[in-house]
Amino acid sequence: MIKVAINGYGTIGKRVADAVSLQRDMKVIGVSKTRPNAEAFVAQERGYPLFIADMSKAQAFSDAGITVAGSVEDMIRSADIVVDATPGGVGVKNRALYEKHKVKALWQGGESHEIAGFSFNASCNYEGARNRQFVRVVSCNTTGLCRIIKAVDEGFGVTKVRAVMVRRGADPHVIKKGPIDSVVLDPVGIPSHHGPDVNSVLPDITIVTMAMIVPTTQMHMHALIFELASDATREEILAIIKAHPRLGLVKKATGIVSTAELKEYVMDLGRPRSDLWENGIYEDSVSVVGRDLYLFQAIHQEADVVVENIDAIRAMAGDVADGATSIRMTNEALGFVAI
Amino acid sequence: MIKVAINGYGTIGKRVADAVSLQRDMKVIGVSKTRPNAEAFVAQERGYPLFIADMSKAQAFSDAGITVAGSVEDMIRSADIVVDATPGGVGVKNRALYEKHKVKALWQGGESHEIAGFSFNASCNYEGARNRQFVRVVSCNTTGLCRIIKAVDEGFGVTKVRAVMVRRGADPHVIKKGPIDSVVLDPVGIPSHHGPDVNSVLPDITIVTMAMIVPTTQMHMHALIFELASDATREEILAIIKAHPRLGLVKKATGIVSTAELKEYVMDLGRPRSDLWENGIYEDSVSVVGRDLYLFQAIHQEADVVVENIDAIRAMAGDVADGATSIRMTNEALGFVAI
Amino acid sequence: MIKVAINGYGTIGKRVADAVSLQRDMKVIGVSKTRPNAEAFVAQERGYPLFIADMSKAQAFSDAGITVAGSVEDMIRSADIVVDATPGGVGVKNRALYEKHKVKALWQGGESHEIAGFSFNASCNYEGARNRQFVRVVSCNTTGLCRIIKAVDEGFGVTKVRAVMVRRGADPHVIKKGPIDSVVLDPVGIPSHHGPDVNSVLPDITIVTMAMIVPTTQMHMHALIFELASDATREEILAIIKAHPRLGLVKKATGIVSTAELKEYVMDLGRPRSDLWENGIYEDSVSVVGRDLYLFQAIHQEADVVVENIDAIRAMAGDVADGATSIRMTNEALGFVAI
Amino acid sequence: MIKVAINGYGTIGKRVADAVSLQRDMKVIGVSKTRPNAEAFVAQERGYPLFIADMSKAQAFSDAGITVAGSVEDMIRSADIVVDATPGGVGVKNRALYEKHKVKALWQGGESHEIAGFSFNASCNYEGARNRQFVRVVSCNTTGLCRIIKAVDEGFGVTKVRAVMVRRGADPHVIKKGPIDSVVLDPVGIPSHHGPDVNSVLPDITIVTMAMIVPTTQMHMHALIFELASDATREEILAIIKAHPRLGLVKKATGIVSTAELKEYVMDLGRPRSDLWENGIYEDSVSVVGRDLYLFQAIHQEADVVVENIDAIRAMAGDVADGATSIRMTNEALGFVAI
Repeated sequence: MIKVAINGYGTIGKRVADAVSLQRDMKVIGVSKTRPNAEAFVAQERGYPLFIADMSKAQAFSDAGITVAGSVEDMIRSADIVVDATPGGVGVKNRALYEKHKVKALWQGGESHEIAGFSFNASCNYEGARNRQFVRVVSCNTTGLCRIIKAVDEGFGVTKVRAVMVRRGADPHVIKKGPIDSVVLDPVGIPSHHGPDVNSVLPDITIVTMAMIVPTTQMHMHALIFELASDATREEILAIIKAHPRLGLVKKATGIVSTAELKEYVMDLGRPRSDLWENGIYEDSVSVVGRDLYLFQAIHQEADVVVENIDAIRAMAGDVADGATSIRMTNEALGFVAI
Repeated sequence: MIKVAINGYGTIGKRVADAVSLQRDMKVIGVSKTRPNAEAFVAQERGYPLFIADMSKAQAFSDAGITVAGSVEDMIRSADIVVDATPGGVGVKNRALYEKHKVKALWQGGESHEIAGFSFNASCNYEGARNRQFVRVVSCNTTGLCRIIKAVDEGFGVTKVRAVMVRRGADPHVIKKGPIDSVVLDPVGIPSHHGPDVNSVLPDITIVTMAMIVPTTQMHMHALIFELASDATREEILAIIKAHPRLGLVKKATGIVSTAELKEYVMDLGRPRSDLWENGIYEDSVSVVGRDLYLFQAIHQEADVVVENIDAIRAMAGDVADGATSIRMTNEALGFVAI
Repeated sequence: MIKVAINGYGTIGKRVADAVSLQRDMKVIGVSKTRPNAEAFVAQERGYPLFIADMSKAQAFSDAGITVAGSVEDMIRSADIVVDATPGGVGVKNRALYEKHKVKALWQGGESHEIAGFSFNASCNYEGARNRQFVRVVSCNTTGLCRIIKAVDEGFGVTKVRAVMVRRGADPHVIKKGPIDSVVLDPVGIPSHHGPDVNSVLPDITIVTMAMIVPTTQMHMHALIFELASDATREEILAIIKAHPRLGLVKKATGIVSTAELKEYVMDLGRPRSDLWENGIYEDSVSVVGRDLYLFQAIHQEADVVVENIDAIRAMAGDVADGATSIRMTNEALGFVAI
Repeated sequence: MIKVAINGYGTIGKRVADAVSLQRDMKVIGVSKTRPNAEAFVAQERGYPLFIADMSKAQAFSDAGITVAGSVEDMIRSADIVVDATPGGVGVKNRALYEKHKVKALWQGGESHEIAGFSFNASCNYEGARNRQFVRVVSCNTTGLCRIIKAVDEGFGVTKVRAVMVRRGADPHVIKKGPIDSVVLDPVGIPSHHGPDVNSVLPDITIVTMAMIVPTTQMHMHALIFELASDATREEILAIIKAHPRLGLVKKATGIVSTAELKEYVMDLGRPRSDLWENGIYEDSVSVVGRDLYLFQAIHQEADVVVENIDAIRAMAGDVADGATSIRMTNEALGFVAI
């Protein structure tokens, strides 16, 4: 039983905690919060022991009716692996703590590759993470890119990828970030950081990415253009997608043409928090023109890395040797229903 | 066991179906769709027999891999009560069908009071619906107004209510409706229809409502101003809210100040479809100034009428005599967790 | 000729500069910027001498092709009156500078009443600002409230006002502020600061305000509820509005029911920057029920205070004795076209 | 003096009318409306004779205080050229009328190529429109694509273009269209109609376009990927853009990174209706990688076709032989200020 601590019980942390608690080979030994708020009430409701960084705030938690189990250091001492899900740029400050306590730790894609020296995607390089002390799970967009690029590359070879990433402005519950009515180039310069970040997982892929932000909260949308190394038919590409445990196909028959409808569909299928853990590839968009492949995929920014975190934990713990097995274990525990 | 048919498996219909299926005294005998799409796949996934209005479309359903159980008339013939959850204005056309088959039917608030001659809210007039053939459950906004007005009126008397209703532009999955960047007066004229609609349930209340639409999908927000008939303290008002089975209090300690954060909190508490069935009254907003009471409440447009539909079914079936009992049965079956 | 300096050439500052330059009794002697950007190019294009706070940045301006006329202190030394249009909370830090140079200064509503000891609205208290050294022009929302409340109070007496203010989340060009999809109570508590702020101009009015923020950029919307001290007809209220130089009536015949359509109409009428300097009161909303008056008004957050700044300058300079005359001079210089 | 009638005084029609009225070789002899509303008041304010399709509505216009000059047929009889700016799909119904009256007519891009048999862009095929009876000005997005593709192709040869078009959901004043919070693939299939539409102007270009809609009103954004036929440097590409009368360069020094900031800048420069008639190419995005050229361009959906309409009128009238001359005349009359 791998003892997992979640340092940072927010958008990603709360999902990882629930996913860990569903795995037969893992358990949540604690989660952390910096102040008493709605998420702290949720942690308590779910029964996760709650630890806090600054014990001088224990009274504030107590006043709100929330029980504090101890300090973050207490939590780390009891853990086999810490999932650092603190906000981007904060995680790097926690590294010394993990080293001091000789605990394994994994970070999210908001941190740089150098924090761990290894950037992870279960479908691409699971084996490389086995028994490592430190691992970085790449960001939601990079995760979505790596999955489909690796799959197409294995099938037909990929000579070049161009990706235009239309990103959501903020998560649904975030009220201070915009834009309200604008398309924002982020960055204006080309390429965006996503291309190099894909290369941190798949170093041999030639890729140029362009990125912008739009006023939506529901999901990112990727427009992908592949130059293939060998001939492929649309049907062969669809077959690769259907066979892949982390690529979902948004069937034409559903009539779904947007991120909003896809989110609703995932909600209606009973997924916790309406989470789409797979890439959402629109069946009707998959097009082969000569040796070019075009497609649209939706990426649920809050969800796709959650399952990768689970696989990364398993790889770091070392008991499961291969990615395919871990992915199957993770998916089954979550009760993946095909979209 | 009350046999319930859901005519119109959309935003409200799919929620009512799931809520019915959780009640011990009811069962879903069928749901209807007009064309094969994502919702039809969901109905099939949930195991609800699917009926269609136009049997000439049976092949289209079959081609999409969806099994058709029969025609809508077949469904109606087997039902004790039909929940008509078709779009506003469509339900009225179905009335003749229900009369022909001598089946009980209830409609949503998109239809006018006259369709049934009785407008329903479980906390206000449950008994009046007992054994009726036809009932109309009032709209989400009217439901939210009736609950709080009735409760305050019972406690202290209400001389006059002014309500400003800031309404969401469309449901989260709706992609064609706006506005994108505007506040729209709907209507410009005063009062909006909500005040008279409250009077269809609570005829003796003096109320003036003003309504507008804004570019959000998550919930409506009501700014409410009551003139009270007798002195009340803030604490007494809070006590009334806390004691009410359909009034939820958004605790100050959660730090929640918006509809988006409230929706996230309800999602994190594990509610199906992130549904807030109660009024979401912001604790920190409840203010008494002289004999005026001010407060803000969030109303989840997709959810608050769902539980009222369940109570209306029970009232019409006649076995449960009082509203308080039905409300308790409904809430318990859904596993209400206090927000 | 009143020599006016604009300290802070942003959303308000650039509009005030253009409005000053159109008055026969005023001239712009300079505007200030902290860094070279689009607004600095605009200032240069318009021919306004550009001053900068930190002379060490002169090279950066020069590299961008923008000529620097001197330091902000240089600008202040040459001015009769400084319009401080720096961001809220920054202006207060400039007060010592204005005192040191014994220059008159006016601030915007983002600063507190105490900064100047006098809160200004041309239609309410012009005379009180005459020859003062320091004045604060109240915020866009407070300006819009003061104008209509004063006018109705003069006509029929106002016993009590309740106002629900639905505020735009950010100005159209602002890309970092949200919300994207939420209604945000700001504040949750009641009253919002607007009521007390109205009292800084109109101390004898009883008013309670409730405020929220929504995802739009175009204008604020106010839902206003007046209790009148004497009987009034709808026609009498409309007559007051039509006669007022800063209250605009959005005619029913235009078919305009929203902020977006109103902005477009103002744009089509050729107003600079599509600016609505008046309150935009929706004719069809003006309703009298007993002794209650209800109405909706749109407030253009970027524009309504601009004309108040001009009048405040004139009052502080002292040459024009009464508000009505100054308002007429300002309006004529801008070429007000009736909406 | 070319006598121009504008059939359809809406978003495009009102802009074309104002642009025509500024040309020395053209005059507006009338505009048409179907019902009295804000735009009808604007037409009257601007002094354009107003004609109506259905004379039975003359009284309604009169009641609103708007003078009707006659019927649409009256208007057409007096015109040399009719600019049909009716909504997409309506224009085709007017074709018989224009044939009957033997009047020249031009349509907008919402109609198909076949309506006129000639699709126009002033920078690409001005000469082909000379003396034609019927011409179609291509849509805003196609116009923006044609301009830059033609310019790059003339400079270095273009082997292939891929374009991802992120489109605004509705114009700023439109309140009924969405989406509010979604990215909508429009269409899901690849290519979108824009690629073939470019070929209606530039038949020899190989182009694949992908298109989606996002919740913004301000401008479209294009992510463009060119494969060049010969080597080019970034500086050479920038030189082509700077030299082109309809390609605007959004200078890095402005700090502008979004559509919203660009619209504000154009507004601040005093352009009527904040109209950006040129492509808005972000200087910092222009990138050459091997023989690939990448860039972002903003396209103002309400504005870029307006100047093309003027040039099309001039080409059809026949007096000005070449596109370069017409473009210069149009730009000078509008007082283009470099962005």
